[in-house]
Amino acid sequence: MEKSYAMNSGAGPLSYAQNSSYQRGIMEAAKVMLNKEINMKLDIQKLSLTASEPLRIADLGCSSGPNAILAMQNIVDAIENKFQTNEKSHKSPELQVYFNDQVGNDFNSLFGLFPFEKKYYASGVPGSFHGRLFPSSSLHFVHSSCALCWLSNVPKGVEDKADPAWNHGRIHYTGAPKEVFEAYSDQFCKDIELFLQARAKEIAPGGVMALVVPAVPDVMSYPQITTGSEFELVGSCLMDMAKMGIVSEEKIDTFNLPIYYTSPKELQGIIERNGCFSIEKLDILDIPKQHITMPDLKQRALYMRAVLEALIEKHFGVEIIDQLFEIYATKLSKSPIFLNPDDQKMTALFVLLKPNENK
Amino acid sequence: MEKSYAMNSGAGPLSYAQNSSYQRGIMEAAKVMLNKEINMKLDIQKLSLTASEPLRIADLGCSSGPNAILAMQNIVDAIENKFQTNEKSHKSPELQVYFNDQVGNDFNSLFGLFPFEKKYYASGVPGSFHGRLFPSSSLHFVHSSCALCWLSNVPKGVEDKADPAWNHGRIHYTGAPKEVFEAYSDQFCKDIELFLQARAKEIAPGGVMALVVPAVPDVMSYPQITTGSEFELVGSCLMDMAKMGIVSEEKIDTFNLPIYYTSPKELQGIIERNGCFSIEKLDILDIPKQHITMPDLKQRALYMRAVLEALIEKHFGVEIIDQLFEIYATKLSKSPIFLNPDDQKMTALFVLLKPNENK
Repeated sequence: MEKSYAMNSGAGPLSYAQNSSYQRGIMEAAKVMLNKEINMKLDIQKLSLTASEPLRIADLGCSSGPNAILAMQNIVDAIENKFQTNEKSHKSPELQVYFNDQVGNDFNSLFGLFPFEKKYYASGVPGSFHGRLFPSSSLHFVHSSCALCWLSNVPKGVEDKADPAWNHGRIHYTGAPKEVFEAYSDQFCKDIELFLQARAKEIAPGGVMALVVPAVPDVMSYPQITTGSEFELVGSCLMDMAKMGIVSEEKIDTFNLPIYYTSPKELQGIIERNGCFSIEKLDILDIPKQHITMPDLKQRALYMRAVLEALIEKHFGVEIIDQLFEIYATKLSKSPIFLNPDDQKMTALFVLLKPNENK
Repeated sequence: MEKSYAMNSGAGPLSYAQNSSYQRGIMEAAKVMLNKEINMKLDIQKLSLTASEPLRIADLGCSSGPNAILAMQNIVDAIENKFQTNEKSHKSPELQVYFNDQVGNDFNSLFGLFPFEKKYYASGVPGSFHGRLFPSSSLHFVHSSCALCWLSNVPKGVEDKADPAWNHGRIHYTGAPKEVFEAYSDQFCKDIELFLQARAKEIAPGGVMALVVPAVPDVMSYPQITTGSEFELVGSCLMDMAKMGIVSEEKIDTFNLPIYYTSPKELQGIIERNGCFSIEKLDILDIPKQHITMPDLKQRALYMRAVLEALIEKHFGVEIIDQLFEIYATKLSKSPIFLNPDDQKMTALFVLLKPNENK
């Protein structure tokens, strides 16, 4: 059974809702491209909605903050705009929106953020997007932003002492032996394969899928990969705590982050081998630096905490969290990650896919 | 803007999930009737689902306990059974299920109860069923159990000192002047009217709506209405606390329960005047006593607490709750409501409706 990961719940100072400006930055960067692609590629003729049929939209891995609502508002506006300007022969359909994330996601908070007046019928769909979530051919537009980097599980082997991919003394593949990186890469390929197979069944002919996938540039292949370095830093803080006798090394060796950053070439290869979708676009997003750099140290540490806290707490217990992120903030303040933000190589891919006819 | 009411959240000892055996009893009593009616009245020819179209089911006012999951399992089994036995010419469609309740409902807990292997695609829909929740003609089977007794708002006038319907010294219409009862009855009529109008737009031709509505028999008209008497008892406990100086009388006079128990004749009248639906069945449910009587005093008090706590806490503050329900349990132990359960006149109506063609 697949594990369930979720961002920090609620709307408090430690919540993902309050600490997702990075993801918001990526979303903003994708906005223009998304609008353009909806206008160009959503094939309304081919969707051939029946008289009363709504246009159905899904946001996969939406999490629980305001980003999900804002992203959907943008999509809905773009779709409405397309009907009103380009497709005057077609009546604007009603819109039905599905917000999906893991069962552990804070849907209560998300639902509380829905605007009272909205242009769509909204619902929440709990479950893993690595499997089926919707009836066959029922979706017309699928969106997913900053979610596909989450693996369905920690890769096999990295927590097994006897395996060449055993990830000793680390919690992520950065700075690890090649076998660790390859285990992560394999897991990502399998997960995306499952994701594409499920979506191929769910998306109706004429439908479109827009993905924003955190990634590293092609030029960075093993061993230069440094984008995981914030995670590496968290891992080194845990190792510090092991030396202080607060956590055991064995505990660290059985904890690995189920997160992977693909590259343009790798993702393109997976999609092409899968064959269910044709790639209409696969571009590196041009993310304005001011959108994603966080000059405030505290804010930067909180961002990492909102993403990782639930995972760490589940494995190590709640009692280490405060101290861990204090150590983390101190280390971060002296790290090139924080001091030289321009060296940050992390980016995101914008991918537009259409289901193949004979998939 | 409509108010949002919700049962106690979570799965703890005070939760609705743990204290909804009464509603479960009513659900069990409705089960046989529901199965029979699905078999007889769901018009599969007329639904004329397209090749890949799922059959869409909504449960309105589902709350957050296991009852919602059990009720849906029963409905899904009955629908599958109909396709497999009576409609061999039709392939069983995929099933898409929408669980609806107010925004304040604990959807997180509900989603956590979904079985891993289930025969339907599930989603949660937050919002009031007194308004639109779904796209036009998108639902094929609608179910609602023990939810339509909740009004959209406290009736106008009952909290206004200058109004003849001012409900002084009480929190419900039991034992109140006729004007109070009439204000409640008027509000119920308006609410059901809105409910029917919204559903008439949402239910596809051939679709069916099954309602289980808590009610009193026709023979009980004002002033013999006693079914609210547990609420009257809660009100009298609050008045006791006013005498003890713990709450103010003014505070009690601005608090009224948005709950109303209709009668068969009244509900029939509303549906007929509305005209959107034809009544295929309107029967008093035969509820076996053992299904709904609660011989355990503590359990009985917890049931009332799970239903009312959120409302009371919001108005009076959390600090009075424990004491209020202690006083309530003591009073209940000496009350005929508890001592003579056979006198309980409360029942539930089973209503089966089909949308009219020229609605």
